[in-house]
Amino acid sequence: MEHEKDDKAKGSWLTYRPEIKVHDCTVRDGGLINNHHFEDGFVKAVYDTCVAAGLDYMELGYKASKRIFAPADFGDWKYCDEDNIRRIVGDNPSPMKLSVMADAERTDYHEDILPKDQSIIDCVRVATYIHQIPVAVDMIQDAHEKGYETTCNLMALSLIHDNDLMEALDLLIQTPVGAIYLVDSYGAFYSEQIRDYTATFLKAVEGTGKLIGIHAHNNQMLAYANTIEALILGANRLDATINGMGRGAGNCPLELLIAFLKNPKFRLRPVLQCIQDHFLPLDGEMEWGYRVPYMLTGLLNQHPRAAIAMRGGDAPDDYVAFYDELSEKE
Amino acid sequence: MEHEKDDKAKGSWLTYRPEIKVHDCTVRDGGLINNHHFEDGFVKAVYDTCVAAGLDYMELGYKASKRIFAPADFGDWKYCDEDNIRRIVGDNPSPMKLSVMADAERTDYHEDILPKDQSIIDCVRVATYIHQIPVAVDMIQDAHEKGYETTCNLMALSLIHDNDLMEALDLLIQTPVGAIYLVDSYGAFYSEQIRDYTATFLKAVEGTGKLIGIHAHNNQMLAYANTIEALILGANRLDATINGMGRGAGNCPLELLIAFLKNPKFRLRPVLQCIQDHFLPLDGEMEWGYRVPYMLTGLLNQHPRAAIAMRGGDAPDDYVAFYDELSEKE
Repeated sequence: MEHEKDDKAKGSWLTYRPEIKVHDCTVRDGGLINNHHFEDGFVKAVYDTCVAAGLDYMELGYKASKRIFAPADFGDWKYCDEDNIRRIVGDNPSPMKLSVMADAERTDYHEDILPKDQSIIDCVRVATYIHQIPVAVDMIQDAHEKGYETTCNLMALSLIHDNDLMEALDLLIQTPVGAIYLVDSYGAFYSEQIRDYTATFLKAVEGTGKLIGIHAHNNQMLAYANTIEALILGANRLDATINGMGRGAGNCPLELLIAFLKNPKFRLRPVLQCIQDHFLPLDGEMEWGYRVPYMLTGLLNQHPRAAIAMRGGDAPDDYVAFYDELSEKE
Repeated sequence: MEHEKDDKAKGSWLTYRPEIKVHDCTVRDGGLINNHHFEDGFVKAVYDTCVAAGLDYMELGYKASKRIFAPADFGDWKYCDEDNIRRIVGDNPSPMKLSVMADAERTDYHEDILPKDQSIIDCVRVATYIHQIPVAVDMIQDAHEKGYETTCNLMALSLIHDNDLMEALDLLIQTPVGAIYLVDSYGAFYSEQIRDYTATFLKAVEGTGKLIGIHAHNNQMLAYANTIEALILGANRLDATINGMGRGAGNCPLELLIAFLKNPKFRLRPVLQCIQDHFLPLDGEMEWGYRVPYMLTGLLNQHPRAAIAMRGGDAPDDYVAFYDELSEKE
């Protein structure tokens, strides 16, 4: 048998790297489907599952500004107030860390992110578009000084020009951020591109102790495949969601990822139990996963909003009309 | 940006190789779901779609032995009698070639495969398990002498030991076979393995003029990703099915593959039209595509039959009981 001598690969499919950490985003990314209106029982089930499955992190939702997003319109997980989190996790008597996502320019971070000693949250993940990097840097600094682990999730990477990316990475490595994520927001990337970006990110953080992460979307049915490619090259922070739940085409399915990782600390059975008990009953109520309209926005490197609107409209199955509409706008 | 210098890659995602040929297997592999009981309108729609999409080959079904498989139990596409094919395609007035699959030890090939001048079929694809290679070699010889293009589809590759594989490839390159396919029957392979196998197959046929093909299954949501990996390294014959239709978790979705290939001869719109008109209405009637039970058989490198039986049984959603059952048998 031929065996590719890939010097960049950090292991083979039969080994595992204990330093790899898996971050569940089910409730956070899934909340984008239903404006974060999850019942407590569902959030608790996801929390219990993540603990039982041996995950490293679970993300509960956003720290969205109540000035911008009226609380009447959203569920609790849009804001992740301390009391609401504790209602589900108590004092989080588990080794699993909890995170929230804070969007640049959509978070009143000075007020809403409490000093760490007043919070059950362990990690603040700052999500930013490229033009918001200066705000993101300030948010990272703020959260770090308050005592949190931080990450920077660089969204819509597929729209960023190379020189802007290099400048952004230069800025980020000067911050106390712990990990920088490549985020394929539109599910637009192929494995070759993921490999190139992972190498670029890794090179940028070389010698800084910072880690690289990946958050993939499944528009072209590549969320899991691309997550594997990134981890093979050295990405050590991996986002996934139970049953792939997430806006539009969804995310990298947690059950596939932990089965692949083979680290004995991860356990698949609780994830399957959770899918069976809590996700299958959502069929018909919430939609996510690979479908042609989401595939088309991924293919064209566009935000999925047009596909989501189409799926919620009068002709959710008129794929050809949607394709024609997207093609005309190109 | 980093750019991997991969000497083995035969192109990048922005280029296309005109020598790549796409083989639709919708009716053949889809027939394994419903014992080949498709209505004529459906088969005609797939045929018209494949022609309009610019595909190179379409496979209609099997040349199964009527002694082994009683015609009362199966639809016409289990046997692909000449008259039945012509009922759909007439004289096939298109550049697209037609194929049938002939399973080793399940085909009365001496009688049922007619001399080419009496047939509308262009290509006979011989499907074989490793222990049937001697029969397969005889079938290839027979079909070749009758005037057909031939391929050999080496099934359940994930169960074959390396030395047996090398011996099988040695035997096959001495036959007139035109292409040898790596068939991931169980959807068990990761991209790293696909890369290694593609390199092994390519090396085996070096200098013979024979081609390498891939037929992937979607148990671990990698059918499309793995097909891309194989083609990047030089596989030039690619199997896919409309909407990923196929037994169990299904196959590489044709719509994703031709969108990726970027050869202007391929057209996506007719495929989308066909999905919309003919595949969406099958929801609830025929099941295929990624689901946890199929994922589990893929993960454990097993035939999907246990998962298919479970999905057709009393507790199709009891993923955990199925997982426990499979794990106990390991």
